[in-house]
Amino acid sequence: MSEPPSRLPGSSSGSTIAVIGLGLMGGSLVRALISREDGTRVLGATPDPRDRAAAERVLRVPAAPDARDVIADADLVVYAAPLAPIVEMVPVHAPLLRDDAVVTDVAGLKRPILHAVQRAGLSSRYVGAHPMAGGERSGFDGGHEDLFRDALVWLCADRGVEPHAAQTVELFWSNLGCRPEWTDPESHDRLMERVSQLPQLTANALALALEDCGARASDLGPGGRDMTRLAESSPEVWRDLFAHTAPELAGLLRDLGGRLEELAVRLESGELGAVAELMARTGRWRVGRGKRASETE
Amino acid sequence: MSEPPSRLPGSSSGSTIAVIGLGLMGGSLVRALISREDGTRVLGATPDPRDRAAAERVLRVPAAPDARDVIADADLVVYAAPLAPIVEMVPVHAPLLRDDAVVTDVAGLKRPILHAVQRAGLSSRYVGAHPMAGGERSGFDGGHEDLFRDALVWLCADRGVEPHAAQTVELFWSNLGCRPEWTDPESHDRLMERVSQLPQLTANALALALEDCGARASDLGPGGRDMTRLAESSPEVWRDLFAHTAPELAGLLRDLGGRLEELAVRLESGELGAVAELMARTGRWRVGRGKRASETE
Repeated sequence: MSEPPSRLPGSSSGSTIAVIGLGLMGGSLVRALISREDGTRVLGATPDPRDRAAAERVLRVPAAPDARDVIADADLVVYAAPLAPIVEMVPVHAPLLRDDAVVTDVAGLKRPILHAVQRAGLSSRYVGAHPMAGGERSGFDGGHEDLFRDALVWLCADRGVEPHAAQTVELFWSNLGCRPEWTDPESHDRLMERVSQLPQLTANALALALEDCGARASDLGPGGRDMTRLAESSPEVWRDLFAHTAPELAGLLRDLGGRLEELAVRLESGELGAVAELMARTGRWRVGRGKRASETE
Repeated sequence: MSEPPSRLPGSSSGSTIAVIGLGLMGGSLVRALISREDGTRVLGATPDPRDRAAAERVLRVPAAPDARDVIADADLVVYAAPLAPIVEMVPVHAPLLRDDAVVTDVAGLKRPILHAVQRAGLSSRYVGAHPMAGGERSGFDGGHEDLFRDALVWLCADRGVEPHAAQTVELFWSNLGCRPEWTDPESHDRLMERVSQLPQLTANALALALEDCGARASDLGPGGRDMTRLAESSPEVWRDLFAHTAPELAGLLRDLGGRLEELAVRLESGELGAVAELMARTGRWRVGRGKRASETE
């Protein structure tokens, strides 16, 4: 593989990137961009004063309370806020962007953002991104420079997207060490209900069950710690996502409840061989099978 | 803190330790013991030919197919097999042990082992141990030298245990870098149903739900990977444990199902603020509160 160019296409000298939202995701982006020292100008904005102060130590320029103050010069605007604020900002920002500015975001669902972008007339310059990276810590200080390294990042856009925008966003994420993969927003969002939102609420439910039966987080071993790590995730970020997937997610939670009931029945009836067989099946599922289509021969 | 002595008490020169079972736990023990290069003689036994071959490369002496061939000389016998084989071996081995041999084990439940030890007349020389360490990989090659480093290890014994045995076993685990903590077997086993067995089967149930709705393990991000890591755990090890806790565990699985149902209902009725509040509660539970009694002031 050839080394990708370190500059964004379309910028003859250093380009300007505006990162809107400076929490875990935006904070990690800012750190990764600054660390490259490639002449890229990085601007940041967030209404959160603590994240702003933390970001300014890395950016070495003031971060703006209002995103409108940093987008006017940007070659690339990256929305790294929770979903609802992105949907609110897009139409307000659209008339303020440069004509050749490209827009991306990191939200965990892509349909709601794409709809907002379409309504704002930006879909030719927007490529949605969802890096499969994150962490249980919130805020700028929860981020780190390597958060996106080696992460799969889903990309999707309207059919009418300009090739320049598609190329810019793909290269932006590649240069951060991600593995970009194109998908359509419907497939993406449906998959995320399963592989992201369901595990998230499972961790919360498990933590609630443990707390209510008197167990303490410090009683957990490494397995139990892994199984409850997501219980620390930001409620704000997830609430915005659940607003778009609640009925489907409720069905998935009930299906999982059915699996737990099946295991309970087998335990009670002494069918331990059947329980072990189900465990063996999950082991096979996790280690070997079910590579993504792009990874199979 | 003063440095603990690196020799087991009661051994003027190097002592002999027999590790019975050479899977993930036994394999990690063998590696950790050999790496200390303190003159301890380490012997190993397992009926599994692959684990035996792997262990011999580390032990540099033959591993025995039958544990009876390595226990006769041991100052300390460490049972690192699944629970059922330990319970079977204890009465067979009891008459073959040295009179001053001390016995410990690593099983995830302590009552069944303690009962077997009592019936075999070994309870004065037995201290059960449960290191809160492990991994999803099975077999000798799944282990590593640092598996036990910084792990909490629960210790418990019969009231009539000899001080020498208690001291030997506590020091054995301390010297491996663990943090030993004494408990009683009933409290231990009850806690493990909650903080160990429930998370284990939750991971399996989640993996089953994901597989059946067409998700692939490669679709998971870091959160989903953590939530299904335990789905690779050894069915054999866990089946032996579930045999002793099935009714209680079934109740815990149903309680968790109730939490999932509560979340489903709130999602369906649009009570996203209530969902976020539950998420915030689990975050508080996990990060700060609920230190073990010994850790609070």
